Amino acid sequence: KKCLNMQSQHKRKLDKSVQDDLYFDSYSDVTIHEEMIADSVRTDTYRLGITRNGHAIQGKVVLDVGAGTGVLSIFCAQAGARKVYAVEASSIAEQAMEVVKLNHMEDQVTVIRGALEAVQLPEKVDVIVSEWMGYALLHESMLNSVLLARDRWLKPGGLLLPSKAELFVAPINDLTVEERLGFWGTVKERYGVDMSCMTGFARKCIMNNDIAVSLVTVEDVLSHPCRFAELDLLTVTEEQLRSVQGSFSCACFGSSTVNAFCVWFTVTFPGEEKPLVLSTSPFKPETHWKQAVLYLDEPVEVMQDTKVEGEITMFPSEESSRHICIHVEFSIGDLKRKNKTFSIPDGYADVQ
Amino acid sequence: KKCLNMQSQHKRKLDKSVQDDLYFDSYSDVTIHEEMIADSVRTDTYRLGITRNGHAIQGKVVLDVGAGTGVLSIFCAQAGARKVYAVEASSIAEQAMEVVKLNHMEDQVTVIRGALEAVQLPEKVDVIVSEWMGYALLHESMLNSVLLARDRWLKPGGLLLPSKAELFVAPINDLTVEERLGFWGTVKERYGVDMSCMTGFARKCIMNNDIAVSLVTVEDVLSHPCRFAELDLLTVTEEQLRSVQGSFSCACFGSSTVNAFCVWFTVTFPGEEKPLVLSTSPFKPETHWKQAVLYLDEPVEVMQDTKVEGEITMFPSEESSRHICIHVEFSIGDLKRKNKTFSIPDGYADVQ
Repeated sequence: KKCLNMQSQHKRKLDKSVQDDLYFDSYSDVTIHEEMIADSVRTDTYRLGITRNGHAIQGKVVLDVGAGTGVLSIFCAQAGARKVYAVEASSIAEQAMEVVKLNHMEDQVTVIRGALEAVQLPEKVDVIVSEWMGYALLHESMLNSVLLARDRWLKPGGLLLPSKAELFVAPINDLTVEERLGFWGTVKERYGVDMSCMTGFARKCIMNNDIAVSLVTVEDVLSHPCRFAELDLLTVTEEQLRSVQGSFSCACFGSSTVNAFCVWFTVTFPGEEKPLVLSTSPFKPETHWKQAVLYLDEPVEVMQDTKVEGEITMFPSEESSRHICIHVEFSIGDLKRKNKTFSIPDGYADVQ
Repeated sequence: KKCLNMQSQHKRKLDKSVQDDLYFDSYSDVTIHEEMIADSVRTDTYRLGITRNGHAIQGKVVLDVGAGTGVLSIFCAQAGARKVYAVEASSIAEQAMEVVKLNHMEDQVTVIRGALEAVQLPEKVDVIVSEWMGYALLHESMLNSVLLARDRWLKPGGLLLPSKAELFVAPINDLTVEERLGFWGTVKERYGVDMSCMTGFARKCIMNNDIAVSLVTVEDVLSHPCRFAELDLLTVTEEQLRSVQGSFSCACFGSSTVNAFCVWFTVTFPGEEKPLVLSTSPFKPETHWKQAVLYLDEPVEVMQDTKVEGEITMFPSEESSRHICIHVEFSIGDLKRKNKTFSIPDGYADVQ
């Protein structure tokens, strides 16, 4: 027996403040911070993005939204910021204070424990830095707090780090899942019991409406990436985030079977010469965000140049505004247009 | 950002029927069954345990408690059972019916969907087979249903498969955790920010009161296994399961650091010549049960022959009777006796 996630399938509607408490609590454990800081694509790109914008940070005031352990705030202090306000709602703020002390930056960095929405700063800021991206970019809805910080605390003409986010999609053939489905055909050989009839049930369970967060390998991707949405973080509004929509059109590389869509994102740091991109693409080194995988109900055969087209809408779940939903309308080749709505399950944890 | 298990830290007391529904729901997904059947130590040992007891099954009536996909029921039918009642409370029972049909065993195997407690059988049975073991043996408390089945449906002198369970403990040095703690000392070198002060906080987070389910390697184990409890499944009562207690005394192999206790179990199938043991020991091939790891608050240095002694009590959690708690009283060498109580967290999922 293996009892996994006993409560995860039981969805309840919790009120907003309870949701927020649970959300902030989830950042009070060390594991999540260890994973984020150990993600060197993430941490190095932020460090470089901050360093490259040193001219705009030198002698200026910075706000770090959701500062966590304070590492980005210290990068900004190292880049010469006169003052960094590190705002963090979870109890990890206490560790951030220790880290700031250990690095002798108490004069430059002030850690403020509280939700951004409730915090009062003594002055407006020149720069806002934040690592707000969740799974499939918008899970957790933390971007809303960054936009509020921008509207309330950023001086006109101030700098946002990062300043742009983009969303991509591609059809994939997820081989891991095909292997898992194949397992049921092997049981007879292994144990003398024919369990091949489980395959359909397994497909229904695995290819469900959950957004799976898993590593997609380059070999699984069946077309060039297609960008379906771009958010200019200096101008996008909370209202616009209630429905992030875009269309896509991909042409398949060759003969294969589409069993899922893969969604990922990039964020971009502005730069005088060349902007710096933090990418979670399956074509780039892996990050802790992995990719978001959306399974079709049925696999579809494709050939070279088969068109995979459609429209994607991302919106917060009604039950919990921090949970993201993804609605995909799509057509593959000449097949009838279909649609499916996905969401990240409660109590999300990667089973693999 | 990575929001992990948003609801897992929020413990609520749910009433018993809601708890049961959640518990049975957790078995309605394919993943859990795939993992159990793919665990060849588990499935092969059950198969062999059933085959070796063929003389007692041939022409007899068998009850399979918590039959899942029905694989053990079919093993019993293959061993010549006249009739097998496969009782399963979750909706996976429907798949079990399909599997029985596919293997042309409808005459021998009857799948009954329902909780064992509510089920009426047309006759008493000669044999009860059940794979009821949870993490740390008693997590999920499914053994209670097996004992009820025994008292209500097993003929006098009937056979239980398996018929015995034993619990073991050993002090360990969990190197994975030491490596994780070491990470914080490497951040300065990697990113130029000294985060070594996080180590103490990390230790508190990781070495908490949760029972961790993870693979312990042989190299981590610091003494011979010490058996601290034995359950004779033919005679043990539900009352006795409310507190399973035993003492242990281990002598360390050599100089090392104890940072945790490792707890595991075996179950035994009776046999004419030699009993057959299904072991989840770290000294044996891995199973999906892995081992239960109980972290000390502080690591303790030991030398060759240092005595690690104490008493372990396992009991169901007050909040949820299906959750197991483990209380350990222990002394290491000449140090003062300490104690710590552990439990398996809600919404359990292996983070590693």
